[in-house]
Amino acid sequence: MGKIICAGLGPGDPELMSVKSDRIIRGARHVAFFRKKGRAGQARTIVKDMLREDVIEYPMEYPVTTELRFDSEEYRALMVDFYAEWADKLETLSKAHEVVVLCEGDPFFYGSFMHLHTRLQGRAEVEVLPAIPGMVGCWNALDMPFTWGDDVMTVLMGTLPEAELVDHMMRGDALVVMKTGRNLPAVKRALAAAGRLDDAWLVEKGTMPQQRIARLADTDEDDCPYFAIVLVHGQGRRPEAGE
Amino acid sequence: MGKIICAGLGPGDPELMSVKSDRIIRGARHVAFFRKKGRAGQARTIVKDMLREDVIEYPMEYPVTTELRFDSEEYRALMVDFYAEWADKLETLSKAHEVVVLCEGDPFFYGSFMHLHTRLQGRAEVEVLPAIPGMVGCWNALDMPFTWGDDVMTVLMGTLPEAELVDHMMRGDALVVMKTGRNLPAVKRALAAAGRLDDAWLVEKGTMPQQRIARLADTDEDDCPYFAIVLVHGQGRRPEAGE
Repeated sequence: MGKIICAGLGPGDPELMSVKSDRIIRGARHVAFFRKKGRAGQARTIVKDMLREDVIEYPMEYPVTTELRFDSEEYRALMVDFYAEWADKLETLSKAHEVVVLCEGDPFFYGSFMHLHTRLQGRAEVEVLPAIPGMVGCWNALDMPFTWGDDVMTVLMGTLPEAELVDHMMRGDALVVMKTGRNLPAVKRALAAAGRLDDAWLVEKGTMPQQRIARLADTDEDDCPYFAIVLVHGQGRRPEAGE
Repeated sequence: MGKIICAGLGPGDPELMSVKSDRIIRGARHVAFFRKKGRAGQARTIVKDMLREDVIEYPMEYPVTTELRFDSEEYRALMVDFYAEWADKLETLSKAHEVVVLCEGDPFFYGSFMHLHTRLQGRAEVEVLPAIPGMVGCWNALDMPFTWGDDVMTVLMGTLPEAELVDHMMRGDALVVMKTGRNLPAVKRALAAAGRLDDAWLVEKGTMPQQRIARLADTDEDDCPYFAIVLVHGQGRRPEAGE
């Protein structure tokens, strides 16, 4: 069996990837990465100054991203074929060369590589290198402690039904909402219903040069960046003077 | 104002810290870290092969760890004095030298440094370097995708009341339980009550040389390691063939 290494890239700043991912990527001859058709790709952009001169690149272009609803049969069928095709290609390639697959954030935390990881079991040796999840980079960008003491932290996808969002937002202390984009108006309404909107931050492209931070309540209704995370800090127990 | 850098160390394997933390620690002349009295300290152990020969070390020894209940007045008073004393010491030191404070995991995610960060505002320039949280190292050690699709991830402390644990465990998809130790029997009962015990893993010292992985249901009642995390994987939506 050949070897495939999935290198987690972290939140975006190349200095925040692990020493191990950094070394593996700088030494890699065969590098694959996901991207939207016609784009450079976020993962490829993060490593742009790290690749060998003689690197051979394998862009894995999603057949569809937001043009179809993710729960439609057509979307599902296209993605099944896409992952099956790339699992085959990577297996074949790995028999001749070690292959490095790039993955933003931490690969096992809502990452696209997991769909290849599942399909490659028994067909290649697969090693996954963990990384700082995007949400950790985003709360670091806000420069405030995120969770204290007994805080319950809840990570939610903006794609969930609004009523479920409200329910979880009322029960969690620290909140993270990912996959915002076009779901952001619903996320805002849910936070308002849960009484948490005034404490919510929007972090777009956290740790990257184009990083932008805003209080969510101050953003416009049509301001729905695709690559953004919503954060509400926990306020748990801490030993303070005069508490 | 002087400068204090809190360098997140990640889950334990030195190769998993960020390129930036690695560089800052290798170059540091003044290094502070928390530890239990009479111990080497986990943070210090992680960086043992990285420190300069002429490093000056400042062990910040907790006045108490598990001898007193964390919610007792005596514990609170001791910790308030401890953090106030070290905030003063680090502020003074930083006026003469840049100081690096080590912190396991990600500093803003339930980290002890947050108590100094709060107290040092306006007294020193404080920079925090994010890192891979311990839980991410632990799910990587299990080599299985942790969260898929719309999964809700809930992070819980084993110190919470058992009924609250059960309530959250029934509502979350992927579950992380930290601060286990002596609370592990209650955590096990709560997982069983929520119908999740059979899917739960115990990971002790994830990514470290002494790493140990066990199915939680198979562990003995008196097997309550201090430095362990409980994980239950999410099973969310994914495009599989024949789904």
